[in-house]
Amino acid sequence: MEFLTGIKEKKTIGIQAILDGDYAGQSVLLEGTVHNIRDMGEVAFVILRKAEGLVQCVMEEGKTNLSLKELKEEAAVRVAGVVALEERAPHGFEIRLREITVLSEPAEAMPIAINKWKMNTSLETKLALRPVSLRNVRERAKFKIQEGIVRGFRDFLHGQGFTEVRTPKIVARGAEGGANVFRLNYFNKKAELGQSPQFYKQIMVGIYDRVFEAAPVFRAEKHNTTRHLNEYVSLDFEMGYIDSFEDVMAMETGFLQYTMKLLAAEYQKELDLLGVELPKVEQIPQVRFDQAKELAAAKYDRKIRNPFDLEPEEEVLIGRYFKEEYDSDFVFVTHYPAKKRPFYAMDDPADNRFTLSFDLLFKGLEITTGGQRIHDYQMILDKMAKREMNPADIKDYLMIFKYGMPPHGGLGLGLERLTMRLLDEQNVRETTLFPRDVTRLEP
Amino acid sequence: MEFLTGIKEKKTIGIQAILDGDYAGQSVLLEGTVHNIRDMGEVAFVILRKAEGLVQCVMEEGKTNLSLKELKEEAAVRVAGVVALEERAPHGFEIRLREITVLSEPAEAMPIAINKWKMNTSLETKLALRPVSLRNVRERAKFKIQEGIVRGFRDFLHGQGFTEVRTPKIVARGAEGGANVFRLNYFNKKAELGQSPQFYKQIMVGIYDRVFEAAPVFRAEKHNTTRHLNEYVSLDFEMGYIDSFEDVMAMETGFLQYTMKLLAAEYQKELDLLGVELPKVEQIPQVRFDQAKELAAAKYDRKIRNPFDLEPEEEVLIGRYFKEEYDSDFVFVTHYPAKKRPFYAMDDPADNRFTLSFDLLFKGLEITTGGQRIHDYQMILDKMAKREMNPADIKDYLMIFKYGMPPHGGLGLGLERLTMRLLDEQNVRETTLFPRDVTRLEP
Repeated sequence: MEFLTGIKEKKTIGIQAILDGDYAGQSVLLEGTVHNIRDMGEVAFVILRKAEGLVQCVMEEGKTNLSLKELKEEAAVRVAGVVALEERAPHGFEIRLREITVLSEPAEAMPIAINKWKMNTSLETKLALRPVSLRNVRERAKFKIQEGIVRGFRDFLHGQGFTEVRTPKIVARGAEGGANVFRLNYFNKKAELGQSPQFYKQIMVGIYDRVFEAAPVFRAEKHNTTRHLNEYVSLDFEMGYIDSFEDVMAMETGFLQYTMKLLAAEYQKELDLLGVELPKVEQIPQVRFDQAKELAAAKYDRKIRNPFDLEPEEEVLIGRYFKEEYDSDFVFVTHYPAKKRPFYAMDDPADNRFTLSFDLLFKGLEITTGGQRIHDYQMILDKMAKREMNPADIKDYLMIFKYGMPPHGGLGLGLERLTMRLLDEQNVRETTLFPRDVTRLEP
Repeated sequence: MEFLTGIKEKKTIGIQAILDGDYAGQSVLLEGTVHNIRDMGEVAFVILRKAEGLVQCVMEEGKTNLSLKELKEEAAVRVAGVVALEERAPHGFEIRLREITVLSEPAEAMPIAINKWKMNTSLETKLALRPVSLRNVRERAKFKIQEGIVRGFRDFLHGQGFTEVRTPKIVARGAEGGANVFRLNYFNKKAELGQSPQFYKQIMVGIYDRVFEAAPVFRAEKHNTTRHLNEYVSLDFEMGYIDSFEDVMAMETGFLQYTMKLLAAEYQKELDLLGVELPKVEQIPQVRFDQAKELAAAKYDRKIRNPFDLEPEEEVLIGRYFKEEYDSDFVFVTHYPAKKRPFYAMDDPADNRFTLSFDLLFKGLEITTGGQRIHDYQMILDKMAKREMNPADIKDYLMIFKYGMPPHGGLGLGLERLTMRLLDEQNVRETTLFPRDVTRLEP
């Protein structure tokens, strides 16, 4: 009988291992994809693409088993060669090729210059060719950084005593209600795709006190803008035993501080590649909704048209105000009008036209909505009655209040929007692997 | 202007902090939910439920600001009291209560004895009352362990150079095809819910070489069995530059070894609570599909009815065989018949009726399906032609082979099934927070 006893050690080596060891003059075995071939006559540069970066290989005439014309870009290869220090090469070394084994070959040449530093093509083309355009080193760096943000979110919250949960995405009724839901037939029952894990994460506070989830949410909004997606990744957390909704904002600030440090420590290569400077997050100003509107209106000479709404242009101006006045890319806008918040939001006891809630703006774009939630059974029934909602529709959710819930609050953060602002991209599709929008269902 | 500068330190203390410090005789402030009240006459025991465990509090007549009848089970409270060592109490200490602040109160008494060690109720009732039945300490321990499995999966793979990706769940076409898909109307286009991230994770191998995802998948199967769910969490990975599909099995073995160690190190409390003994994973036998059938048939005197299929009863017998003969709870069954595998599976060049693929059985239940994938463009076109599939239907996926892909393979692992077998539960719904099955869409 044969047995598996654990991971198999590879005979091939990675970039970091070469940098960490003393390999100059040594023979190594390396795997990668032929990213670029530059024929210089007597020598050719064969750039290998590996997950961690590019490796310059040198092919000298007559010194390898294959000739240059037998090698295609985007072929997967295993090469044997000698490491030579070369300061003009990426990572400061190159590989003098001796033997090349072609592991697989493309059938056709790439339809887009993914091996150029900048692809110089439209977003439309990049998205249509997403399965291969992502191979561009700048494109893939974006999503490596996005990975880092999710890691930061999870690792930070885990350290703060949060439990990770996994809640269903096919639901009987969405948390936000309204028309913006994708509906489906679930074994002859009406079902929806979850717009938010809101109800479930509140339920889970009754079990683990503090919970989080990083998972897809679905919104059938017909907005086709640079900042809307119809499926996106929501970073959600919810925490019990809060003293105030400020505890939630403080936790988010902690997450941002932790994550920027993590990115600086482990994703600096990708940040450098994209020329990204991380924002300062030592302190984030907080301002009331009504006050924010007034500050922006006064400074930028803009009329307040609707005191109970924040237009995208106003968000931009508020962002600009706090950048100019406090050198902050972030600002918490608090006490949103009750009309603009869902029924489960806790009203401000001092003035129930407003709620104990907030948005976080990052460079003038809303990336987070959060706040304190109602935890009292009668209070939530009263608020539902005022809005003419039927408790029977969401009786499973209301069960938690009936049988007791601690004071709690939480937030939802749009991963693609946060990444977009962090990388100074102008369209949220740039920071979404495979965007879903009104016109786009593929790839 | 006010600023948020990071997380707010709490004045209340947790169980671990009390255990780590020298608190005997000291006053502490503690938050929690009243899990259980036992009135003994002159004293009462008030058991507080916290995320990390239970805390025994003692209420002596006349020594607290509240009387016992003002305290309800499932009230959220903040208590001040003195720590006293008491070996019969959970964690070896109790709190002599001095002051109790009620933070919130239930409107009604709990409809189910969640504060009993075992709830002694049907699965049906537990599921109907899921939002509160999960508060039972044994119930919540299950999903804490499940969290540990996902952490193990991610942390192990991250350490092996895998990149985490997030792929769309609304798709134009599922990877497995067939009738078992949930369909929806996506802005007047036909869409489906992803049955698997298969196509996307293969695409991402071309970008990061090694990728993983832990996310929901959706299957509209009408099976209503103890092991089927219509929405479940799939732990998926895919790795490039493999020498053989055994590399994939070796990686899974490494994951299991890492995760069992993590569970033993950080989830021992929950394992003890549920009386779970972790399986041995130092070595996992591998056996060919046809051979496995013969071994089980011979030993248990069972006729082989169909040489190209594995019935659930056969899986059970194969599991039993390897437990009895090799003391292993796991067995890799390899070389599944091509007929039973999707078109993208790599056929065995030695005999193309079989594939370079495997299932992992855990105590006689399939928890993983994996294998090597086709990476050659012509080979996949040929296999699709044989199955009368139309390449135009999945041209975005086929793009990666046309333009070049390294040899690769991967697997998908059902999180709830792995948890179910680990905890020796008899129904996969026991290890699913909010199960979705043919009859169940709520809670």
